[in-house]
Amino acid sequence: MPSLESTLNIYPLKNYSFITKNDCMENKDPSLPGYFNRLKREFKYLGQRTTVKTVLLVHDNNMINVLLLRMVPQFYLLPGGQIQPNECEEDALKRYLFDYFGLDIDTQTKPIDVIAHWWRPNFEQNQYPYIPAHISQPKELTRIYLMSLNERATLSVPKNYTVVATPLFELYNNVGIYGEIMASLPQVLSRFNFNIIT
Amino acid sequence: MPSLESTLNIYPLKNYSFITKNDCMENKDPSLPGYFNRLKREFKYLGQRTTVKTVLLVHDNNMINVLLLRMVPQFYLLPGGQIQPNECEEDALKRYLFDYFGLDIDTQTKPIDVIAHWWRPNFEQNQYPYIPAHISQPKELTRIYLMSLNERATLSVPKNYTVVATPLFELYNNVGIYGEIMASLPQVLSRFNFNIIT
Repeated sequence: MPSLESTLNIYPLKNYSFITKNDCMENKDPSLPGYFNRLKREFKYLGQRTTVKTVLLVHDNNMINVLLLRMVPQFYLLPGGQIQPNECEEDALKRYLFDYFGLDIDTQTKPIDVIAHWWRPNFEQNQYPYIPAHISQPKELTRIYLMSLNERATLSVPKNYTVVATPLFELYNNVGIYGEIMASLPQVLSRFNFNIIT
Repeated sequence: MPSLESTLNIYPLKNYSFITKNDCMENKDPSLPGYFNRLKREFKYLGQRTTVKTVLLVHDNNMINVLLLRMVPQFYLLPGGQIQPNECEEDALKRYLFDYFGLDIDTQTKPIDVIAHWWRPNFEQNQYPYIPAHISQPKELTRIYLMSLNERATLSVPKNYTVVATPLFELYNNVGIYGEIMASLPQVLSRFNFNIIT
């Protein structure tokens, strides 16, 4: 039987340098209720929102780390956001990787696979990795992409964010701090063979 | 960008019939401490144990269900078990699908993908979807296979087990009843596009 497992090269954290941009990345919805209100407003004429999020991995002392963005005081997110009307998914990925990390998707990263889907059935916080029963029209679909990262790179990050390389054991089941999506990344990523390059 | 998502045909539960074998499936380790004792004994001369588990999916009223085995009173498991010395992984999958479900892997099912890995660092209950820090030799690796299932089939099940088609929403985060591995199947499976065939 051919091996069904995917192998991905993972380079050390020290191969990457992080610089701070002069600009802030504007947050359209500084509050969660604000996010749901805009989702509701836009749903009327645009229908289901599709959001893309990207997972980039490095290792630190052989432990796999996910690159998360932190906003003060303690709010973590994966780089990404909603796909704009008339924008294709690839362009959205490209835009967000550039805006949050200053990375060029064509030369510095590459989409490896869609690793998870999460559906938001209502204009509320709850998201599920399936469409709940009796929900004919979810309000938002979040598609999580695993991206490869070149052996070395400089990442430039908006002034209002910090990059935090977060080990899988820290994310694992830690819903309180990271939310459902990030807290289940260890399970979701476990199918890959990581080729740890030192 | 080519679609990275995998699509899998899922047939209705009613396409499958379940019959009970005359035989029981012997359980080598009726207790969990018994399991860990045997793992410890065998580790000395065989090293890390590799266990394979299989996920088969059906749908019931458009909701995705996982076929679990139940032992009385309320103990659930995925069909599978350890790979024997001198047995290859494919043969182990074949053997367990036949023993638990009476399915012929060559004509009725097909491995689609490895969807998760879980490591047991010590001779204890805890398993993790990564190798924890400072563990150089995990004691057991459990590899979870998603299997496709033909459009129709008859499954024959040992007398001491019952098959329970369990919807994803029932498994989701329900660690107390199903344990970590089964409780995270919804997240792990969410990357697939299920082609629900009615």
